[in-house]
Amino acid sequence: QEKQLTAESNKGGIVLTSADKDYQVSLNGRIYMDGVHYFDDATDLSSDASISDIRLGTSVKWGQWSAKVNVSFGNDEVKIKDAFLRYNYAKNSIFTVGNFFEPFGIEGAASSKDLRFIGASNMTEAMGIGRSIGLGYTYYTDKFYGSTGVFAGSVDNDNEGDQGFATTTKLVYTPIVTDKVTFQLGGSFTYRIPEANGFNESLNDDDYNREVVLAAGPEDKFLNADIQYARTDMRYNFQSMVLSGPFLLQAEYTKTKVTRDDDYVSRLMKDNPYWTHTASGGYAWPTTPGDYPGWYGELRDIETKAYYVQAGFLLGDNYAYDSASAYIKRPKAGSYEFLVRYDNTNLNDIDGTYFNGSYGPADLDAALGGAGNMSIQGGKSESYSVAVNYYLSDNVMFRLNYSYMDVQNQAYPLDEKIGMLKARVQVNF
Amino acid sequence: QEKQLTAESNKGGIVLTSADKDYQVSLNGRIYMDGVHYFDDATDLSSDASISDIRLGTSVKWGQWSAKVNVSFGNDEVKIKDAFLRYNYAKNSIFTVGNFFEPFGIEGAASSKDLRFIGASNMTEAMGIGRSIGLGYTYYTDKFYGSTGVFAGSVDNDNEGDQGFATTTKLVYTPIVTDKVTFQLGGSFTYRIPEANGFNESLNDDDYNREVVLAAGPEDKFLNADIQYARTDMRYNFQSMVLSGPFLLQAEYTKTKVTRDDDYVSRLMKDNPYWTHTASGGYAWPTTPGDYPGWYGELRDIETKAYYVQAGFLLGDNYAYDSASAYIKRPKAGSYEFLVRYDNTNLNDIDGTYFNGSYGPADLDAALGGAGNMSIQGGKSESYSVAVNYYLSDNVMFRLNYSYMDVQNQAYPLDEKIGMLKARVQVNF
Amino acid sequence: QEKQLTAESNKGGIVLTSADKDYQVSLNGRIYMDGVHYFDDATDLSSDASISDIRLGTSVKWGQWSAKVNVSFGNDEVKIKDAFLRYNYAKNSIFTVGNFFEPFGIEGAASSKDLRFIGASNMTEAMGIGRSIGLGYTYYTDKFYGSTGVFAGSVDNDNEGDQGFATTTKLVYTPIVTDKVTFQLGGSFTYRIPEANGFNESLNDDDYNREVVLAAGPEDKFLNADIQYARTDMRYNFQSMVLSGPFLLQAEYTKTKVTRDDDYVSRLMKDNPYWTHTASGGYAWPTTPGDYPGWYGELRDIETKAYYVQAGFLLGDNYAYDSASAYIKRPKAGSYEFLVRYDNTNLNDIDGTYFNGSYGPADLDAALGGAGNMSIQGGKSESYSVAVNYYLSDNVMFRLNYSYMDVQNQAYPLDEKIGMLKARVQVNF
Repeated sequence: QEKQLTAESNKGGIVLTSADKDYQVSLNGRIYMDGVHYFDDATDLSSDASISDIRLGTSVKWGQWSAKVNVSFGNDEVKIKDAFLRYNYAKNSIFTVGNFFEPFGIEGAASSKDLRFIGASNMTEAMGIGRSIGLGYTYYTDKFYGSTGVFAGSVDNDNEGDQGFATTTKLVYTPIVTDKVTFQLGGSFTYRIPEANGFNESLNDDDYNREVVLAAGPEDKFLNADIQYARTDMRYNFQSMVLSGPFLLQAEYTKTKVTRDDDYVSRLMKDNPYWTHTASGGYAWPTTPGDYPGWYGELRDIETKAYYVQAGFLLGDNYAYDSASAYIKRPKAGSYEFLVRYDNTNLNDIDGTYFNGSYGPADLDAALGGAGNMSIQGGKSESYSVAVNYYLSDNVMFRLNYSYMDVQNQAYPLDEKIGMLKARVQVNF
Repeated sequence: QEKQLTAESNKGGIVLTSADKDYQVSLNGRIYMDGVHYFDDATDLSSDASISDIRLGTSVKWGQWSAKVNVSFGNDEVKIKDAFLRYNYAKNSIFTVGNFFEPFGIEGAASSKDLRFIGASNMTEAMGIGRSIGLGYTYYTDKFYGSTGVFAGSVDNDNEGDQGFATTTKLVYTPIVTDKVTFQLGGSFTYRIPEANGFNESLNDDDYNREVVLAAGPEDKFLNADIQYARTDMRYNFQSMVLSGPFLLQAEYTKTKVTRDDDYVSRLMKDNPYWTHTASGGYAWPTTPGDYPGWYGELRDIETKAYYVQAGFLLGDNYAYDSASAYIKRPKAGSYEFLVRYDNTNLNDIDGTYFNGSYGPADLDAALGGAGNMSIQGGKSESYSVAVNYYLSDNVMFRLNYSYMDVQNQAYPLDEKIGMLKARVQVNF
Repeated sequence: QEKQLTAESNKGGIVLTSADKDYQVSLNGRIYMDGVHYFDDATDLSSDASISDIRLGTSVKWGQWSAKVNVSFGNDEVKIKDAFLRYNYAKNSIFTVGNFFEPFGIEGAASSKDLRFIGASNMTEAMGIGRSIGLGYTYYTDKFYGSTGVFAGSVDNDNEGDQGFATTTKLVYTPIVTDKVTFQLGGSFTYRIPEANGFNESLNDDDYNREVVLAAGPEDKFLNADIQYARTDMRYNFQSMVLSGPFLLQAEYTKTKVTRDDDYVSRLMKDNPYWTHTASGGYAWPTTPGDYPGWYGELRDIETKAYYVQAGFLLGDNYAYDSASAYIKRPKAGSYEFLVRYDNTNLNDIDGTYFNGSYGPADLDAALGGAGNMSIQGGKSESYSVAVNYYLSDNVMFRLNYSYMDVQNQAYPLDEKIGMLKARVQVNF
């Protein structure tokens, strides 16, 4: 069947619609032109200008069904973004299958084009989730927003080994939604089996080869927790937002708990004490699987936590709440926005004292023997940021950020204070 | 010259056309959302969810000329798909230049979106051809379909060395095309000079460095014939199809013959018997070019063959034949399709007995000396598959497949029975 | 605000425009289908068929602001092309921010689709600039064209280390612009801090790790100057063009001057004369930083230069000048174009005589000791090319080129005469 379409410009984008509104197709695109200058401390960082995101995509609607295709080519790399099929059971009751944002937190589930700063907070970079392949359901009313889903791995992961699994739910309640004040409270929870990071070479399986990496900040250097032998990954997020005329207050807290275990039997087989550890042959330590946790410490669970608080002021518009996304609408053309943010991210979970290159027991003999690297020292930081945004139109905005990051990371002992000046010209339609 | 265009939705896609029908532009897109779960035997396989294909493209028609641009970004990788200029001498007489399907077989020349199963049969995966860069001509009537072309290599090959060449022809005759029954018989033939696989390092040429790889099935592991020193590659395909109301019967047989030769003189120069093979200097075996084929066996030609048979039943529609593509039209919205398939693929061409890691002469001395690796043991398999398809609309379909693969491959001696459960949500417009 | 749009085909492309002409969106695409056959001399080159460029993109105009997104997928690789935001202060006075052509020379600042030959001259390939990320301003009248900008590195560079900087200006004066004759003279200048090529491993900085690579011709082999320890990079271009009816004469001259310096102190620390240079320990040469320039020669500045002259004849149309781009308009459908070109590119800057694998002082002792590799021997060539173009329409053209290249490069002593036959089917809309 053929249907005549009429073409319109809608908020600066292009939409073609059939007379019965049953068929609709739109095109979308995006460019981020970025510059970043680092005020390095000890470690040299790469100040850079870049086209950090550039996108082409299209959305099509056939009655209650719709699909979206959106691919990023930022920095000359392909990244599949939104790629899903959606069934709109009702306007506010939506099933989605494909690649889309897991419902976790405010920043973690919002498009980067709608974030207040250039990029997310360190909290969200490190412990937010982003898009996964899965099946989701979203329901919302004026005051309530609920979204849940089951997911099976990231499209960007092409490691060998089985994909991970996750179930993620976000519940947001906004008891006050008036023209004067909006007040929102919410929480998100995810339970995850991490993705395999390739096969264990000697044993050709992926059973204990799963890994959780939490990383944020300049080039992911100073905040970087690489948690190996991961078994499960649980994360909690609490969010709050207050809008009042031109004022915004927004805060999130995230906690991650990763359980770990290792296959000590296979590990012993691999270490092969007879052949490897002695020149002339004969058995050497470790001789039993129990030697590993006995000496190095148990692979105990790792907990990390972070939060941020940010305040904003709009010049030329008031903040407006969008119950469909449980987030803020784009300010109108000509508005200026001023923001401050404090972020505190702690990726350390340390047991014992630092000695001889790793964290371990206070027992000197054990430490000298190399014992004790089961702690995770991912670094911690406090960041202070300011931002100015100018919304030229529905399609163009200019951003300027300055961040000052106070870093503590045993792997970069000389780095303490890092400054970052960032600018972005953002075009989206 | 400027022309007014009118926009229409055509089968759920979008087309803009000038009043004189001379100018037409359409947009197209695609998403495949896939999940595969392997019931492994001995070798661990990677169960995975993926966006295995995502496409953006456009077609433009200027009178008798038209062009198509279509790029895939599945799994975050760029693959150029249809990219051609076409001259429509008449509606059924078409010249094409660019990157497009070589006319070889049914599955091998059809878009994956129109295949009955998720992915092609092992036969087609291993010995089908796909797209190449070339010049082709297609002519068809109600009962006859002929397509031929000359091709020069694949756009996905960026190895050093000269490209290959191929000429490929497909002839299909459909003596019965009625509302009740359609019966089709056809054959395809291709003659190929394989592409160079980089330069021979020591001699800086690509003369004997050509390679044919035939691979199929789970991660290309259990069916994988890597035929080196290839000189020519000939393939024959026979196809047959019967449509009768809601019933489909389809079968293909493919045979590949690869001739091989090596430059034994250069090989001897490279092996350098004086320096390499003796510690103190002095000549060691091999000393003449003839020593190689004498000891290891001639680089004889390799033949592999495979076939599949599949039967289908449509619930809610009848199968309809499309003479322009010599294939089946898409069933109408709301139809269910049920299918079974048997595939038999044999990538072995073995001379001699298996001993000491390779196939060779029965002579124990020779075998112990490492002689005899000129055979190709690519593995063989029988696969049994069932499928259910649900055609939600012209643009959306849901697929569910289960395959059981009975494998024999010397390189994976412990793997015998592999199960695969696959699901796909397919969106195309 | 929503606006009704009308769709038109404009020069074979598609444009949607609002009634007030304030909003406009267009789609663009491109395919280059290429074949190249090399008549090799000594070194084996890779004759190849390829889809060397394929593009998808869109342009949007909102009143005085406009944006362009254009990405190339040629050879299955992503390259961001035009990606910018533009402010049209007046029709002939334009600010641009993003990724776009630096204004340098004729060929270096023109789209490949408008070049007369398949690809640019060796001069432009080696010393032209192409697109960078920056901020530019262009102003033009009938007779004057001026464009300037500041730039900060290439989007294709993902090396570690700080980006480079550049300022580039092009001034063109066209004193005669009549129907009968157009005569143009112009010059361009760029001053550049080259981009860092990763960090110096031992010292973890990028201070002396900058590099300028000038390369052209078949697979960048025979013309290739890799200038390391670069500090600054200055280039001058002079251009001239004469159009008279169906005749074209076009010439460019480019000169590059790269200054160099090295951190001899760090280099000595790295060479570690005590440990590295003697078996038993004890100090060995070099012992002071000054030993390096004293023995190997100063890292003197490198100058390279090149020019080309080309003449064209149009059958079926006359050449027409476009003051907005300071270049030639596309000939009309049905035209044939015949061209000849002479290109002379010299990437050598050699001091001393060739001996023992490098250029150095005439002093035999020094040369035997390995002194003297501070010269740059990038090779030089004279190329003679002929071309025929057929402009089928505004969207399709066929190109055929033959080039004969007379090469001198110490690194390829046996290569002297290389022939290249190239063909392209070019589709753009």
